[in-house]
Amino acid sequence: MTTQKCDIGRIPRIMCELCSIFEEYASADGDGKTLTKAELKNLVEKEMCPMLKEAKNSSRVDDLMSAMDHDGNAKVDFQEFATTIIAFTCICHESMKE
Amino acid sequence: MTTQKCDIGRIPRIMCELCSIFEEYASADGDGKTLTKAELKNLVEKEMCPMLKEAKNSSRVDDLMSAMDHDGNAKVDFQEFATTIIAFTCICHESMKE
Repeated sequence: MTTQKCDIGRIPRIMCELCSIFEEYASADGDGKTLTKAELKNLVEKEMCPMLKEAKNSSRVDDLMSAMDHDGNAKVDFQEFATTIIAFTCICHESMKE
Repeated sequence: MTTQKCDIGRIPRIMCELCSIFEEYASADGDGKTLTKAELKNLVEKEMCPMLKEAKNSSRVDDLMSAMDHDGNAKVDFQEFATTIIAFTCICHESMKE
């Protein structure tokens, strides 16, 4: 599926989309600023399904939660979310080069 | 412009799109692995235009190049590119909250 090029350029649209995906799932409990484990599980199941099919398995979500939750407060803020997504992207990009 | 939700989830699609945008512009000189200053300028003008309208102004591109080129080798690899895009995204997300 190729995404149409729009006049603002694809990078700003990607940035906005990351922000809105995060807000959409972080708002389930009304907070909108951080992802709880339940909200992260929901995001992973709906938006990252091929990568973490076993998200139904709670320990997989625990693993992801601890990978993302850098400050250990049992919640994932936007910076933690975005940094982890980019780490996954760099790993995928490396594996594409092999 | 809302992007349609596709079954693989929006996150993998964003990750793939970042990889393909980078490769598209990094391949102008046949290398495909790093962005030269000229390739970065082209990417910025076409894909980040609202953020850096003055990309025509070479010193703006120099500023961006030094912001991205963490190892100082006068080229931007994918990790440097993706990390900087996420830093911009976090700044935008913060300013959206104010």
